[in-house]
Amino acid sequence: MSRFMTPKTRRLTPYTPGEQPSERKYIKLNTNESPFPPSEKAIMYSSDAVRLSNLYPPLDGGPLRGKLADYLGVPKECVAIANSSDEILNFIFRAFCGEDSPAAFADITYGFYPVFSSLNGAPYTEIPLKEDFTLDIGRFIGIHKNIFIANPNAPTGIEISGEDIERIAESNPDNIVVIDEAYVDFGGRTAIPLVDRHDNLIVVQTFSKSRSLAGARVGFAVSNPEIIKDIYTVIYSTNPYNISRANMFAAIGAIEDDRYTKDNCRKIISTRERISGELKELGFRLTDSRANFIFCEPPDIISGKELYQALRERGILVRRFDVNRIENYLRISVGTDADMDQLINAIKNTLNI
Amino acid sequence: MSRFMTPKTRRLTPYTPGEQPSERKYIKLNTNESPFPPSEKAIMYSSDAVRLSNLYPPLDGGPLRGKLADYLGVPKECVAIANSSDEILNFIFRAFCGEDSPAAFADITYGFYPVFSSLNGAPYTEIPLKEDFTLDIGRFIGIHKNIFIANPNAPTGIEISGEDIERIAESNPDNIVVIDEAYVDFGGRTAIPLVDRHDNLIVVQTFSKSRSLAGARVGFAVSNPEIIKDIYTVIYSTNPYNISRANMFAAIGAIEDDRYTKDNCRKIISTRERISGELKELGFRLTDSRANFIFCEPPDIISGKELYQALRERGILVRRFDVNRIENYLRISVGTDADMDQLINAIKNTLNI
Repeated sequence: MSRFMTPKTRRLTPYTPGEQPSERKYIKLNTNESPFPPSEKAIMYSSDAVRLSNLYPPLDGGPLRGKLADYLGVPKECVAIANSSDEILNFIFRAFCGEDSPAAFADITYGFYPVFSSLNGAPYTEIPLKEDFTLDIGRFIGIHKNIFIANPNAPTGIEISGEDIERIAESNPDNIVVIDEAYVDFGGRTAIPLVDRHDNLIVVQTFSKSRSLAGARVGFAVSNPEIIKDIYTVIYSTNPYNISRANMFAAIGAIEDDRYTKDNCRKIISTRERISGELKELGFRLTDSRANFIFCEPPDIISGKELYQALRERGILVRRFDVNRIENYLRISVGTDADMDQLINAIKNTLNI
Repeated sequence: MSRFMTPKTRRLTPYTPGEQPSERKYIKLNTNESPFPPSEKAIMYSSDAVRLSNLYPPLDGGPLRGKLADYLGVPKECVAIANSSDEILNFIFRAFCGEDSPAAFADITYGFYPVFSSLNGAPYTEIPLKEDFTLDIGRFIGIHKNIFIANPNAPTGIEISGEDIERIAESNPDNIVVIDEAYVDFGGRTAIPLVDRHDNLIVVQTFSKSRSLAGARVGFAVSNPEIIKDIYTVIYSTNPYNISRANMFAAIGAIEDDRYTKDNCRKIISTRERISGELKELGFRLTDSRANFIFCEPPDIISGKELYQALRERGILVRRFDVNRIENYLRISVGTDADMDQLINAIKNTLNI
C-alpha cells in the first residue's frame, strides 16, 4: 500500500473472484460460465464492430438499448446498460445507498454486495438465511433499507416467488428493492413484469451466463424511467462510453440469436437435473438450485475442503467459500454433459466408489 | 430524478461528452478520434477473442499487462489497466483523493477532473491558466494537493516540460502528481521515464487516440508498484473483470502493430501543421498544439459560436466549450487530409473568402 491512499480506501475489502489459473488446463466449473461459445451472430456482429473502433461507441448503450428494450417488452427509457452487471450494481449502490441510506441483504449471497456497500459509504445489515438456506422473507418486510436480493440466490441457487418480491417492495416504499437475476434464465421467473407495479423495484440481469458472454461484460437494469435516469447520472459522472463497440454488438447478436440461448439453457437445466440426481445417489445434500450451478455438501466421509482439493488435483475446478455455515459446501457450475460426467467420475474415484 | 437518490449523488454534475449525432452523416472533428481504422492485428486478435467470450476475461489485464509493460520498458507491476483512461482516472481519484486529500488542476483542462473530484468527495482547486493558456507552473509548486495535469493539455494542446513536471513532483512529496498523456503520441514527450525517480508520479495513457481504439475502451496507468497495487485494490472493489476479451486483445494487436500507429501519428502531425498554417493565413489565432486537435479562435469578423454553427450546417462537427475565456475558441480534431481540406473550404465559404 502506498502512503498516499486515503483512509476510506484503506478500509476497503476487495471482492475475491473465482480462480482463473493459467498454469494448467482445468475443467472450469468454478465461475458459472456457460460451456457453450457465444452465438454465431454475437461473434459476427462483434467482429464487424471492431473495424469501426477508431470511433467512440455510441452513448447510452447505442442500438443495444432499443434492441434490448424491444426484446424485454419495455420502453427504452426503462433500461440502463453497463459494462457488466457488477458495474450496474455498483452504480445502483452509488445512486441510492449512502451514509443515511443503508443497505440490507442476506448473509449468504453474492459477495459483491458488502463490497459495494463499503465502496459507497453505506452501512449494511446482513439478514441470515434460514437453516435450510431459504431467504428469511419476514425479516425484509418493512425493514426500511435498500434491499438487494439475488434471485435465484448465489451460491445456493434457491429462488423466491414473485409474490414475496411484491410483499417486500410494498412494505419498503421509501427504499429501492433490487432483484439481481444473473441466473434467472435457468428455470427461474423474472420480476421484470413487476417493475410496472412498484416504482421502487429494480431488476438487474447480465449477458454473462445464459447468453455465453461473460468475456464481453454487458449487464443491465430494468426499472421505471426516473430510476433509470438516476443510474445514467452516475454513468455520465463515471464513464459515459462504458460499453465498447465490440461488447455492445456482441450483445445485440446474442439477442437476435435468442433461440440458441434458450436451447443452451434447456441443455444446462437438463444436465443440472441429471447430475443432481447422481450426486444425491452418492450421498450429497443439495439445495433446490434454479441456476446454472449445483450447491452441494458431500457425504460425511469427506469434507467440502478435502473434496475441493481432490477435484483440483484431478483437473477440475469448483468453488468453495470460506464463509460461516457453508464452508463444507461446494458450488459446481453446470458444464457440458461430458464435463459433468468427468466430474462424477472424479468424485467416485475420490470417494473410492 | 427519483425520490430514492442520495443527497451526495444529487449534487453530481455529470460530464458532457462531445455530440455523437446519428440523424445525419457528419465529418466528425469533435471528439479527437483517429480518422484511421484500428490496425489489422487489433481487428484480427479482437475478433478471435470474441469466440472465447463465454469465459470471463483473465484478471489484471491478462496478457495485455505483460505485453504493454514490455513495450513501455517497465516491470509488469508498474502497470494497471482499465476500461478507458476515464475509468483509471476515476480509480486514481478514488484511491488518493477525498475529504482530507483535495485535488488541484487547471481551470481550463479535461472536463472530467472536477466531475471525478465531486464523485469521490474531494474538494478541488482550479488554478487559472496564464493569459496565453500556458500552465501556471509556479502555482503548482508546493501546493500540497493531489495534482492532475493533462499533458499536452486539453483543449489547448499546449505541453509542459519534463523539468517542470519534476519540479512539481518534488515540491509535493506527500501528494500524487498525475500526468494524463491521452494526446502524448502526437509530438509530445512522455513522463514515463520519470516514474522511477518520483514515487508520487502517475502517468496515464489511452489506446483511444493514437492507437485508433476509442471504441475499445482501454486505458492504463504507469507508476511504482505500490501505487499500482492501490489502484488494483479499487479495481477489485469495483469490477475485477473490467476489460472484456475483445477489448483486451484489440489492445494487444495495436501494440504489435506499433509501426502502423507511428505512421498514423506522423500523418496526423503533418496534417495538423499544414492546416494550422492555412488557418493562420485565414486570420485564426492558434495555440501551439502538440495533440491531434487544433485549438483556435476565428478572425474577428465571426464569433466561435457562429462559426461552430455554420460548420455544423455544412456537415462538419467541431467542439466548442461554454467555458469562461475560451467561449470564442473551437477545438478541431485533426482528421484525414481530405476531411481537413473540406473543413478549410467550409470555413472559406462561411467567411466569403
